[in-house]
Amino acid sequence: MRVLTGIQASGKLHIGNYFGAMKPMVELQEEHELFTFIANYHSLTSSKDAETLRQNTVEAAVDYLAVGIDPEKTTFWVQSHVPEVLELYWILSKFTPMGLLERAHSYKDKVAKGIPASHALFSYPVLMAADILLYDVEKVPVGKDQIQHVEMTRDIAIKFNNEYGELFTLPEHMVAEEVATVPGIDGQKMSKSYGNAIDLFMDEKPLQKRCNKIVSSSTPLGEPLEWENCNIYNLSALFLDETRKKELQERYQSGKEGYGHFKKYLKDLIWEELAEAREKRAYYLDHMDEVNDILSMGAKKAKCIADAKMEKVRAAIGL
Amino acid sequence: MRVLTGIQASGKLHIGNYFGAMKPMVELQEEHELFTFIANYHSLTSSKDAETLRQNTVEAAVDYLAVGIDPEKTTFWVQSHVPEVLELYWILSKFTPMGLLERAHSYKDKVAKGIPASHALFSYPVLMAADILLYDVEKVPVGKDQIQHVEMTRDIAIKFNNEYGELFTLPEHMVAEEVATVPGIDGQKMSKSYGNAIDLFMDEKPLQKRCNKIVSSSTPLGEPLEWENCNIYNLSALFLDETRKKELQERYQSGKEGYGHFKKYLKDLIWEELAEAREKRAYYLDHMDEVNDILSMGAKKAKCIADAKMEKVRAAIGL
Repeated sequence: MRVLTGIQASGKLHIGNYFGAMKPMVELQEEHELFTFIANYHSLTSSKDAETLRQNTVEAAVDYLAVGIDPEKTTFWVQSHVPEVLELYWILSKFTPMGLLERAHSYKDKVAKGIPASHALFSYPVLMAADILLYDVEKVPVGKDQIQHVEMTRDIAIKFNNEYGELFTLPEHMVAEEVATVPGIDGQKMSKSYGNAIDLFMDEKPLQKRCNKIVSSSTPLGEPLEWENCNIYNLSALFLDETRKKELQERYQSGKEGYGHFKKYLKDLIWEELAEAREKRAYYLDHMDEVNDILSMGAKKAKCIADAKMEKVRAAIGL
Repeated sequence: MRVLTGIQASGKLHIGNYFGAMKPMVELQEEHELFTFIANYHSLTSSKDAETLRQNTVEAAVDYLAVGIDPEKTTFWVQSHVPEVLELYWILSKFTPMGLLERAHSYKDKVAKGIPASHALFSYPVLMAADILLYDVEKVPVGKDQIQHVEMTRDIAIKFNNEYGELFTLPEHMVAEEVATVPGIDGQKMSKSYGNAIDLFMDEKPLQKRCNKIVSSSTPLGEPLEWENCNIYNLSALFLDETRKKELQERYQSGKEGYGHFKKYLKDLIWEELAEAREKRAYYLDHMDEVNDILSMGAKKAKCIADAKMEKVRAAIGL
């Protein structure tokens, strides 16, 4: 089954991204034909300057390769390397009623939050539809807030198929298994914009420092600690199986250790979990030519499919 | 000075198009660096089926070459042969506030007339901005209803230039000298959609038949006729200089001729005016390879400029 995922190129990745997006994505490639692209046309919408966007695009590639995207299994490319998607985007615009876009929650939410209402922000779901339909994607893993966009893609595809022939595969959304919310150092949901994130690739000392900043209760050393609702525990639990979770709970309840011990334990968990990824990342950063080769091989594979599709679409539509 | 004009590929051209758009365009190429493209991405928006759009695109090329577009002087191409314009269209969307598009009269008018409100219709001014900015166009000849779109193009370009560097030339609109309104056979403005048009390239007999259908007053033969407000006169006048207009007015007033004579006279004027164009048209229809060569040469020239521009734009924006 062909599955498509997009990666926003929006800067340093953190533990929340790792559990919410990266790990599930890497798992997908074992069972599915995974297509993964770095969505720099989309990221452009919120980008502030060229250098950052360029840098973020490359870093996203390195980070995803580091955590395990395997270019032998997965078609992995940068969106703007296959600009055909924008031709499809224009064509699909003919089949996109304004009412459909005006009902998009995500646009309304963003504008309500004060993000300037640009045409790019508004028409984003049409580009997302082109991303999906260009590659005959069957399943699109999305968060709950994105289900509507996959439904819009289906609506647009159905309208095209009805009027110009059955050219597009109707995609289905695929809501990931409920991943536990990853708390930030202040206990709120971890998010770059809240400033409460623990970055994925930090050196060991700064990582320990960051872990030390996690907000915990003020139970004095020597007393049993509550693991329920403890941010340190909740973060650690993401890395642990049931047996090891139990062990950690017992350590909390024993009264023999303080939060400092658990902060060190959490740092060790993060550090070990990412040992292999860190090594790969260092390798790729030292071999950027290889990264570029991987991306251009991916673009070639994607373009091959895109070209064949667009030839059919243009013929069907009269371009 | 670089001047850009777009040609809608929307079917058979008529006398109204000839005086309103084609003749002025052909005149432009004598004094300016003219860029002219057949706007098939735009025409797609209102197109009903593939075959018609394809046919209309080719016919528009043949007809404009026939009336005098000179591919040695003018860069003449089909819009979709330079798809880079759609990449610029997406990039410009970032610099297009929704409010700007929502204020577009043309969109509101079209929707008020019952044309379905698709995203393509709505975002048409952004694509028009890309058409203009991609080629560093200085002047855009437009009808009054399109002045706003050129102003929107300037607004978008200014916003880009301010944020990412002075990359785009600010275009100016150029309202054509007031061309007399061309009446249709019923006296209303000639328009394909009113069914009152006289097609540009008809055989002589059907052309005479069509001229015979022009509505005139019912003054009996032998009496002086009023040339003022006479549709036959007004149509004929388009082809005449002042001296010959006077002559025609005298014939109207002499009382010696009836409307039949003047309908024949009008047919002769049309037939003669288009003699050379008709010949060229027949030639091109017989040599479609040549037409395709001209268009692909034009696309090559346009693409060369587009590629250089897009390289700068991508670098400036971080793609």
